[in-house]
Amino acid sequence: MARIAICAPSTPFTRDDADRVLGLASAEYPQHDLVFHEQCFAIDGHFAGPDALRLAALVECANDPGFDAVWFVRGGYGANRLAGEAVLGMNEAARAKAFVGYSDGGTLLAALYRAGIGRPVHAPMPADIRRAGGEDAVRRALGWLDGNVEGCEPSLDDRPAVAFNLMTLAMLVGTDLMPDLRGHVVMVEEVAEHLYAVDRLLFHVTHHLAAHRIAGLRLGRVSDVPENDRPFGSEPEAMARFWCEKHAIAWLGRADIGHDAANKIVPFGVAGGV
Amino acid sequence: MARIAICAPSTPFTRDDADRVLGLASAEYPQHDLVFHEQCFAIDGHFAGPDALRLAALVECANDPGFDAVWFVRGGYGANRLAGEAVLGMNEAARAKAFVGYSDGGTLLAALYRAGIGRPVHAPMPADIRRAGGEDAVRRALGWLDGNVEGCEPSLDDRPAVAFNLMTLAMLVGTDLMPDLRGHVVMVEEVAEHLYAVDRLLFHVTHHLAAHRIAGLRLGRVSDVPENDRPFGSEPEAMARFWCEKHAIAWLGRADIGHDAANKIVPFGVAGGV
Repeated sequence: MARIAICAPSTPFTRDDADRVLGLASAEYPQHDLVFHEQCFAIDGHFAGPDALRLAALVECANDPGFDAVWFVRGGYGANRLAGEAVLGMNEAARAKAFVGYSDGGTLLAALYRAGIGRPVHAPMPADIRRAGGEDAVRRALGWLDGNVEGCEPSLDDRPAVAFNLMTLAMLVGTDLMPDLRGHVVMVEEVAEHLYAVDRLLFHVTHHLAAHRIAGLRLGRVSDVPENDRPFGSEPEAMARFWCEKHAIAWLGRADIGHDAANKIVPFGVAGGV
Repeated sequence: MARIAICAPSTPFTRDDADRVLGLASAEYPQHDLVFHEQCFAIDGHFAGPDALRLAALVECANDPGFDAVWFVRGGYGANRLAGEAVLGMNEAARAKAFVGYSDGGTLLAALYRAGIGRPVHAPMPADIRRAGGEDAVRRALGWLDGNVEGCEPSLDDRPAVAFNLMTLAMLVGTDLMPDLRGHVVMVEEVAEHLYAVDRLLFHVTHHLAAHRIAGLRLGRVSDVPENDRPFGSEPEAMARFWCEKHAIAWLGRADIGHDAANKIVPFGVAGGV
């Protein structure tokens, strides 16, 4: 069982969707105790409330010894505006927790991993309930929080690993939120970007990751690619191989992650139980 | 007068549009000699020919002592795939030239500026002929190449300056194409990006530019912003001010640059004649 605090460091959720997640959890994972922080439903333009409100809710959830895990309700954009301050505000209770999410939430996973706070985990979020088959994604995260590692990304081995949305990682490299990834298997996935933009992001990210001396790169799914005025002429795997070769990074193959219901779990660091 | 070699380091041009540029130039700037390299019309998927062809044409134009300037025909995406090799292949003739373009061409301007080769210049390109009022943009570049500095960005002073598309600069920071911008006024503009993406890019770029100890940031136009599912809640100038303050970068105000016909000229370094 786990006591799970849910907050929104980026964009807002709806009460209807929260109720669907609570319904699924109480029916299938009654051992868990899920609490949606009110801040999940705050709205301030693009964001789930102003920076200060999102920061306060995140730190409150992280620092409350009554919770075992903090689950980011949704990605979108905005965690970078508070991640640095959030990490600075965390206490000993935060260090015992799992922090679970992906996409823009990867910004927090990175900052926490850099600071050595808790267990950052790339995993589905409550908002995945909106996808076709999204209940399975939510089950995968709830299962992992119950000690079930079947939802973990299958290539995980005894090397430390991390997983990121490619754009999120591209915006993190070189900043003071970026962890040292020496010796890590780095998995990246992307959604809703033109193929030329994917190539451009791989250029940027592989350049920075080469300096980290990572163990190698794996490519997850690149989905919902918008149609361009002409075909790009190369597929994402060929791009990833090209940039890995250019920067002497080991190409390790594909990863079973993506912005979809099949998105698997990647605990940051060396994989294992909760 | 200037002998101007035109090539396509990124995406292809059309012969019809080339004819329009040649027509304008011969009617109004007969003192110039414009030569469109055949490579401008090559097509390989997204690109104006494969990397090797684009590289060869660029280096050929740069190294030919018969030309005073190299004009990038168009942006798009792709210059980063050859910029490093191009700079390594340039000779003494290249060092005497102006290199003129913007948008994705900024990647080459950066690499050349870092290497101290020639005079990189943010300025309109032949492809601007396609815009409403685009003839004026083309005239501005041709005028500058004739020694007319009236088209220069009006805030230029005795401090060195550079100008970039924000996304292009975001992909350059931290790579081995990035010049040292200590003491520089840095101008950025953006096109066709969501406001949340502009905020995210400013986060990344200001973080890196703070480490460069730049003189300050100016914001050009942020145009053709796609509609999002909800308003972002903040305008680009407020975002730029926010991130400048966060990273202790001097906010210097607006810049008269953008992906439009009014885009002004910014010679990299300290402004002056050709």
